[in-house]
Amino acid sequence: MSLQIYNTLSRKKEKFTPIKKGEVGIYVCGPTVYGHAHIGHAKSYVSFDVIVRYLKNSEYKVKYVQNLTDVGHLVGDVDEGEDKIEKQSKIEHKHPMEIAEYYTRSYFEDMDKLNNFRPDISPRASGHITEQIEIIKNLIENNFAYKKNGSVYFDVSKFKNYGKLSNRTIDELTEGTRVKVVKEKNNPADFALWKKAERGHIMQWQSPWGSGYPGWHIECSAMSMKYLGKSFDIHGGGIENQFPHHECEIAQSEASTKKLFVKYWMHNNMVTVDGKKMGKSLGNFTTLKNAFKKFDAMTIRFFILQSHYRSTLDFSEQAIVAAKKGYDKLNNVYKKLKQSSIENKFGEESISIKTYNDDFKSAMDDDFNTPQAIAVLFDLAKGINTILSSDKLLNKKSLNEVLSFFTNNGESILGLFVEDEPKKDNKIESELIELLIETRNQARKLKQFTLSDLIRNKLGEIGIILEDKKEKTEWKKQE
Amino acid sequence: MSLQIYNTLSRKKEKFTPIKKGEVGIYVCGPTVYGHAHIGHAKSYVSFDVIVRYLKNSEYKVKYVQNLTDVGHLVGDVDEGEDKIEKQSKIEHKHPMEIAEYYTRSYFEDMDKLNNFRPDISPRASGHITEQIEIIKNLIENNFAYKKNGSVYFDVSKFKNYGKLSNRTIDELTEGTRVKVVKEKNNPADFALWKKAERGHIMQWQSPWGSGYPGWHIECSAMSMKYLGKSFDIHGGGIENQFPHHECEIAQSEASTKKLFVKYWMHNNMVTVDGKKMGKSLGNFTTLKNAFKKFDAMTIRFFILQSHYRSTLDFSEQAIVAAKKGYDKLNNVYKKLKQSSIENKFGEESISIKTYNDDFKSAMDDDFNTPQAIAVLFDLAKGINTILSSDKLLNKKSLNEVLSFFTNNGESILGLFVEDEPKKDNKIESELIELLIETRNQARKLKQFTLSDLIRNKLGEIGIILEDKKEKTEWKKQE
Repeated sequence: MSLQIYNTLSRKKEKFTPIKKGEVGIYVCGPTVYGHAHIGHAKSYVSFDVIVRYLKNSEYKVKYVQNLTDVGHLVGDVDEGEDKIEKQSKIEHKHPMEIAEYYTRSYFEDMDKLNNFRPDISPRASGHITEQIEIIKNLIENNFAYKKNGSVYFDVSKFKNYGKLSNRTIDELTEGTRVKVVKEKNNPADFALWKKAERGHIMQWQSPWGSGYPGWHIECSAMSMKYLGKSFDIHGGGIENQFPHHECEIAQSEASTKKLFVKYWMHNNMVTVDGKKMGKSLGNFTTLKNAFKKFDAMTIRFFILQSHYRSTLDFSEQAIVAAKKGYDKLNNVYKKLKQSSIENKFGEESISIKTYNDDFKSAMDDDFNTPQAIAVLFDLAKGINTILSSDKLLNKKSLNEVLSFFTNNGESILGLFVEDEPKKDNKIESELIELLIETRNQARKLKQFTLSDLIRNKLGEIGIILEDKKEKTEWKKQE
Repeated sequence: MSLQIYNTLSRKKEKFTPIKKGEVGIYVCGPTVYGHAHIGHAKSYVSFDVIVRYLKNSEYKVKYVQNLTDVGHLVGDVDEGEDKIEKQSKIEHKHPMEIAEYYTRSYFEDMDKLNNFRPDISPRASGHITEQIEIIKNLIENNFAYKKNGSVYFDVSKFKNYGKLSNRTIDELTEGTRVKVVKEKNNPADFALWKKAERGHIMQWQSPWGSGYPGWHIECSAMSMKYLGKSFDIHGGGIENQFPHHECEIAQSEASTKKLFVKYWMHNNMVTVDGKKMGKSLGNFTTLKNAFKKFDAMTIRFFILQSHYRSTLDFSEQAIVAAKKGYDKLNNVYKKLKQSSIENKFGEESISIKTYNDDFKSAMDDDFNTPQAIAVLFDLAKGINTILSSDKLLNKKSLNEVLSFFTNNGESILGLFVEDEPKKDNKIESELIELLIETRNQARKLKQFTLSDLIRNKLGEIGIILEDKKEKTEWKKQE
């Protein structure tokens, strides 16, 4: 089987065939940088990170663009009102660009912790005003857009495919509650490409239509096409952006280029709390910075990947605690195998890795089914644990194959099993523990049992557990 | 005495009086992001970091803007030829913006290691095309600039103060060797504001003069004035940018606003290797990433601050090794004092901190004389060492005052004494070492000297040195 991707455009899984052989251009809607990232962001960006990792691993040359929205995204996702960044800048008494800078840094800090690859290009909306103006000029010239009092609107009635992504008709939209009525629009379903800056609006630029700022949707058309071309392979984002954001992107882009904008539209589902959507405006969100205080970033990543990107993810501490147990099981098996390999400890047991590899690939080829892929890891771990618990060991060939399986699939593709602590420090720590074990063994030989017990007990207090095995004493950290 | 700043405009130290009481706007020319940062960058950005830290500590509200040049900086710093980023993008087979993204990240990684504060805003040149075009339009309208074949040049003969920063006359410039002759210029000393994109030039934008890209100098005028206003307090940069870069910035900005552009111009001197300028194009540069392999970032920071920002810094490994010795001395004294405070160990000795505080402030107020400020730290450390080496201790009041001195001046202002390792790991490590010391003491009590010697010797191998003091055994890491 080859890679199948669920395409929102067709509402079904389709065989993935990139526009240019061997290359993939992917654009994912990035955050609006006016607050710290929350679990909802983590779900979206971990999901697309694994998609990018899998494509890279499938030997595609991938160009991954993810924007940063630092202007034009208005409160309530509508066409009139306050800019989210500017609003925050008033609260913090800072320039809007200081706000954008601060939360951009915070965003990447969190994404780095989650072990997400950095995008190849992270374009900023405010950095592409010229490009946005060019598209708007083209749309006006070709009669897809009209000027009104210094603003410019897209005329949805002129674009016959409007609604092809969200399956909405213009009539539905006109009556819809989400479309706030802006009086100067010809049709309530029309959307802003350029807004005249009202008095006191800090973020504004000169344009052929006077001083103003771009609409929220146009930025993604401008930035994606600038770096990936007029037609590109994958556009990703949260399901809540299907309409109006992505529908509008299609309209603007295809009206201006007369070409297919995006071949595959992919949408991740949302994070819920007790079944309700998690969101900043809903007040029930957990920032990643807070989550990281309680849980390792790897646990959160694993928790996210245990559900499919198109499924909702219900967030609760109990659910993460449960995920941690599973993750630790896998991680411990992997660690033991690495240790055996370092110490050249082999046995007679063999495991055939081929089925596991095939199953992992099938799962990922089936629209990036990460829960299924993780189930394959558990299957393998179970098989290995059966061997190890009966005091047997894998032979050299099997050990190497199993290690490769974990490295390629668990580390490279799923992005798991990264150590939180830097290795340099671990080294001295391990040496000190080994010295304590050696001292304890000497003390026991000298029949100084008070001393040997002291070492064992105090190590336990520090969180280091000793296990006396036949040949040597092993240690592990308390979980 | 109040703060005196050497102003390149007047070639003398001037009392610092900000334009708006209590607030400081500072713009520092940032890197052109087409390669990893080297020691030269470290000197410039550590110098200005300390300046920003000192101003913040003096209770100014500081806005620190430092740009990222991702377009328009041509090879050889001239007006014709290849863009540095685009050239690198061809070498690496990447989009120019991928190059900019990659080296921007690398730059901040290195600056974070050096413990430089992040600027409040890090604007990108390519993100301010609209703003640059607006200034150029204004200059053409006011007859300071002229169009030629799709490019726009600034007419230096129209700006009477041209040369006020670098003290050069236009006649000298016209004959100068650094001004490469571009035929279409009216005067060889004129400089490019906008360049027509030649065939195949990837980075280009639409403008009223056709498709092209901004000149190198205009970006800094556009970005500094956008975020700091038409007139602001401090503009910093490397001495090599005095001419033409900063001279041109003044001409463009003042011609377009009719206002004073910058009140204080500050220039850091360069890094030399065997007396010759260090530079990427000269092939004698050391990247910070390479330097960090051999030396702690704190050592490099200290090494830089041991010379004044307006002095040249001669780079050699021997010089850094020598700096490390000094830095370790200070750091060890500070650590001992912190340890005494944690353990509530006080004695009878007192030190009057006032003179040291006054001397530190005088040094910093004298155009940020960091070598002199560091000398004050050494004086104080010497006094403390005299006390400690005669087995005496500071009383509680003196200990607290001395600790405040180190924290306020050493940590907050000079940005020194930051631990490289995360504290979390240090904790377990310390606990393990303390357990080994306890075990060794028990072994000695039990007259098991082979065992106690084993512990001492093996710890030595790991790099932990024990020192038996009267009351307890202390430990330190081998240097």
